[in-house]
Amino acid sequence: MGSIKSLRCRECGKEYEPQFRYVCEECFGPLDVTYREASINRHTFDLREKTYWRYFELLPITDKANVVSLNAGLTPLQHADKLGERLGLKNLYIKNDSVNPTFSFKDRPAGVAVSRAKETKLKAVGCASTGNLASATAAHAAKAGLPCYIFAPSDIEHVKIAQALSYGAEFVAVEGTYDDANRVASIIGDSKGYGIVNINMRPYYVEGSKTLAYEVAEQLGWEVPDRLIIPVGSGAMLNAICKGFEELHALGLVGSVKNLKIVAAQPHGCAPVVDAFKRNSDEVIPVERPETIAKSLAIGDPGDGIYVLKRLKQYGGLAEEVGDEEIRDGIMMLAQSEGIFTEPAGGVSVGVLKKLVDEGNIDKDEKVVCYVTGNGLKATEAIIGVLPKLTAVKPDAAAVSAMIG
Amino acid sequence: MGSIKSLRCRECGKEYEPQFRYVCEECFGPLDVTYREASINRHTFDLREKTYWRYFELLPITDKANVVSLNAGLTPLQHADKLGERLGLKNLYIKNDSVNPTFSFKDRPAGVAVSRAKETKLKAVGCASTGNLASATAAHAAKAGLPCYIFAPSDIEHVKIAQALSYGAEFVAVEGTYDDANRVASIIGDSKGYGIVNINMRPYYVEGSKTLAYEVAEQLGWEVPDRLIIPVGSGAMLNAICKGFEELHALGLVGSVKNLKIVAAQPHGCAPVVDAFKRNSDEVIPVERPETIAKSLAIGDPGDGIYVLKRLKQYGGLAEEVGDEEIRDGIMMLAQSEGIFTEPAGGVSVGVLKKLVDEGNIDKDEKVVCYVTGNGLKATEAIIGVLPKLTAVKPDAAAVSAMIG
Repeated sequence: MGSIKSLRCRECGKEYEPQFRYVCEECFGPLDVTYREASINRHTFDLREKTYWRYFELLPITDKANVVSLNAGLTPLQHADKLGERLGLKNLYIKNDSVNPTFSFKDRPAGVAVSRAKETKLKAVGCASTGNLASATAAHAAKAGLPCYIFAPSDIEHVKIAQALSYGAEFVAVEGTYDDANRVASIIGDSKGYGIVNINMRPYYVEGSKTLAYEVAEQLGWEVPDRLIIPVGSGAMLNAICKGFEELHALGLVGSVKNLKIVAAQPHGCAPVVDAFKRNSDEVIPVERPETIAKSLAIGDPGDGIYVLKRLKQYGGLAEEVGDEEIRDGIMMLAQSEGIFTEPAGGVSVGVLKKLVDEGNIDKDEKVVCYVTGNGLKATEAIIGVLPKLTAVKPDAAAVSAMIG
Repeated sequence: MGSIKSLRCRECGKEYEPQFRYVCEECFGPLDVTYREASINRHTFDLREKTYWRYFELLPITDKANVVSLNAGLTPLQHADKLGERLGLKNLYIKNDSVNPTFSFKDRPAGVAVSRAKETKLKAVGCASTGNLASATAAHAAKAGLPCYIFAPSDIEHVKIAQALSYGAEFVAVEGTYDDANRVASIIGDSKGYGIVNINMRPYYVEGSKTLAYEVAEQLGWEVPDRLIIPVGSGAMLNAICKGFEELHALGLVGSVKNLKIVAAQPHGCAPVVDAFKRNSDEVIPVERPETIAKSLAIGDPGDGIYVLKRLKQYGGLAEEVGDEEIRDGIMMLAQSEGIFTEPAGGVSVGVLKKLVDEGNIDKDEKVVCYVTGNGLKATEAIIGVLPKLTAVKPDAAAVSAMIG
């Protein structure tokens, strides 16, 4: 039996039974899952499954039989000695979520939300997405045996959603913008009782991303790192990672989290949180038309933006942005030093890390964890322009030998 | 200290010091690595790294400091209950190697070969490949800090090698065929003392693929499954998997392997091993012009083909082929039931499995492991034609509701 207890309003504190509900009736604040005390210690996890479901007691599912697992999580925390050398950092780690089953971190929140949908006997699931979330939701729905509806603008390129389509979800190609697709998804979800993972299942959904904190702590031998570099789209992941570390501390699994420092990383063409942070404002001004190669971070009006700002204040935070060129440089630098091939969002993390080191904002001895959340194969077009051109050579050993020196 | 002992000729048994050497001086047979006895038991591995390097004593590296790890291996063995239901199998498992760091099983052999190259102080590494192996070799070379040369025909599409190029390897674009590229790689490797992972490093290279046996056994609680479905290109992987199970038995980690049954799976347009098997011949007749969507299996003259035939005789073997349509069906069936998105080689495994079940050649109670060795994002064009077309709908909840029923 899991230890999920209630949903509690993040703003006014009102508690609810953990049902199909996602905003506070009183104040419209977002709801967070609360848990009964779990009896666990550091060794509880030693021999468990090598997925994020090893933290079952800390996830919002009551009965293990309802877990829908594609074996996501427990992705590598790679000691990035080579990238560290280049940047001048002695203790750099990359959390490599490009190797999840659908090839992004979204397998965490989507997997938890689909499992909860199964547990609460919803008839179908879905999401509004054209990218990583669409694939993660569709794949978990396939394994769950639940119908799945993906809501997306109808001008989406067919080839860009080939992966998501392969899992057998039904695509609802809405003639309109992404906002239209989102609105339709929300109405359909509520009226039909379908679990739209990133909307009406959101309290459960965001819990999945906490495991990005649990795993890092466990992989470091139950230590809290000095600093985290986290890419920010909606901001939900950053917030969940902070929550994760706080929960581990409350459980006695790690020491103090007071000295943890958080960095929010955004692409220049869509950096509303960075902008608010630099203005020292609590108000996130939406970006009307995001323009960046980091499509998975192109969320102009980030739902959890204000909570990210709170977290940055709480945790000696910084926020920084990088442009497309620095993003491409970040992708290439990561591949050429660590053999990790990331989508542009990962280039944002690495680019921001480099910028902060160059500006003297990160000490060389700090234990830094940089989150890389998606797979480069999903956006190869982003780097085609910066790849070396090929020079042809005759099929002759002497000619080749002369060429390669 | 590792336990590598010697290189031994697979044909005449002559032994050599484990140096930079790959064919027998006496009879030109291939060389296999031998090991000194290792003191290990089932619990040796419990708390070790979650990569294939957990089997360090069984891999051909002497000093752990020389291991070049991208954290490959220990990929999920997914209990495929949903696919099993569709096919009528009660105990089906998918070994999902699409989630390795460069997104195919090649991280196993390439990682071992690059590590050995580092250990024996070779100045550079490389391979002849345009696909999975190029990425795996280049990525491990990047992490090792070794120069890397990828030999490929010059008419290769730039976008198809974007991933491999991103890791910073030098591409030698040979004006000629794949055979020309291979020949040049071989001459350059031997004359300059560069470790060409799939040629002059082959004895070490093939050891990496053994871990596909070790992991399956460990993930099944140190059990030998009843049957393995293995895609065959060069045949080296199938042979290595058999060797892996035999070694585990010799070490007392698993029981008898006598009842293990092996299935070799090939695509119809390049099935020289299946052809020989069905003719009941020991002679593998090369396929001059492979034609299949399963590019990673399009090896017309498989180097280890005759050893695959021997293994099939030894292990109650079967060999079967499927055409492009069945391969696509296999890809879609796997995605829609298990949420696993594979390249066509995985569609070959699943397609052959289905064919054998349909023909009554596999019992429904057998414990079957089906190897899926690469990632669907690498070859999305293969399935574009079979994906559902999108039907646009007005951004109106009533219209959408009517559409989705």
